[in-house]
Amino acid sequence: MTTSTTDTTPTREARIEADPELPTVRITRSFDAPLPLVYRAWTDPELVAQWLGPRSIDMEIETWDLRTGGEYRYTARRDDEELAHFYGSFHKVVPNERITQTWGFDEMPDAVSLETATFTDLGDGRTEVDILSVVFSMEERAAMLASGMEVGINEGYAKLDEILAEQTGSAR
Amino acid sequence: MTTSTTDTTPTREARIEADPELPTVRITRSFDAPLPLVYRAWTDPELVAQWLGPRSIDMEIETWDLRTGGEYRYTARRDDEELAHFYGSFHKVVPNERITQTWGFDEMPDAVSLETATFTDLGDGRTEVDILSVVFSMEERAAMLASGMEVGINEGYAKLDEILAEQTGSAR
Repeated sequence: MTTSTTDTTPTREARIEADPELPTVRITRSFDAPLPLVYRAWTDPELVAQWLGPRSIDMEIETWDLRTGGEYRYTARRDDEELAHFYGSFHKVVPNERITQTWGFDEMPDAVSLETATFTDLGDGRTEVDILSVVFSMEERAAMLASGMEVGINEGYAKLDEILAEQTGSAR
Repeated sequence: MTTSTTDTTPTREARIEADPELPTVRITRSFDAPLPLVYRAWTDPELVAQWLGPRSIDMEIETWDLRTGGEYRYTARRDDEELAHFYGSFHKVVPNERITQTWGFDEMPDAVSLETATFTDLGDGRTEVDILSVVFSMEERAAMLASGMEVGINEGYAKLDEILAEQTGSAR
């Protein structure tokens, strides 16, 4: 089984935009699945654990209380090594529309971002997810962009494409 | 009993700074009490309800789970009228040092800020609290500054001065 015969999905990269004036990052990606399926894959911890982050890493979700005021915590592992411990709060959850949350990790105790993910029905069974993040300074934003975040984002979304393709029965 | 004889504390205004480049607001205020007392008054819901917000308003705290990942919710009332319903999440709590939280209110469903309050011992039994808030855009920051926030901040901190004076036994 070779990659060339089993995976014919073209790599679709997320658009990652850094505002020139504000300490924000906007990530936009469309998915070939109806909004309720995308939202479920984004919010069901069993599914999230299957796609979040780069392919080389396993995500173990310890806490996932997806509701306004709930909290989450997950650990990134490679083999037996714990690479990073992420945590945050779900400030506000509007099912199938919008999730506003904080995001941080134990390894950089002062780093924190506020993020709003908005889910939009594009029609024809397609969905766009737009994530706007803000941090306290341009320096923190620069560190975020320099972290290699695009690898985890694009590999994670490619895994999510695969999960959604299974669910929608697409023959890709 | 007149104000002139019972209250000789000069009004001490908080410093409220809007960064010219970033969608942030920094609020700085010193208190004539040791850091553990200021931190307790900031975090004990029974005390918070006594000082938070303008004098014309009562704060009723419904939820207050002050820990990393906890949530809060409180209602501002004037007489029997519910004026606003505030809520948010405590992203991270480092006791006696720093609290990072979100802040929103039901009446403006999309408005949200991320705030970090830092407590610094100034020596001589005095404490500074510095709060840095960030929002997603300059427009939201302008709306925040135009909301009359300084009234609630300054009247609230004056009430906090009174609570702290009682606790430290200052004869003011």
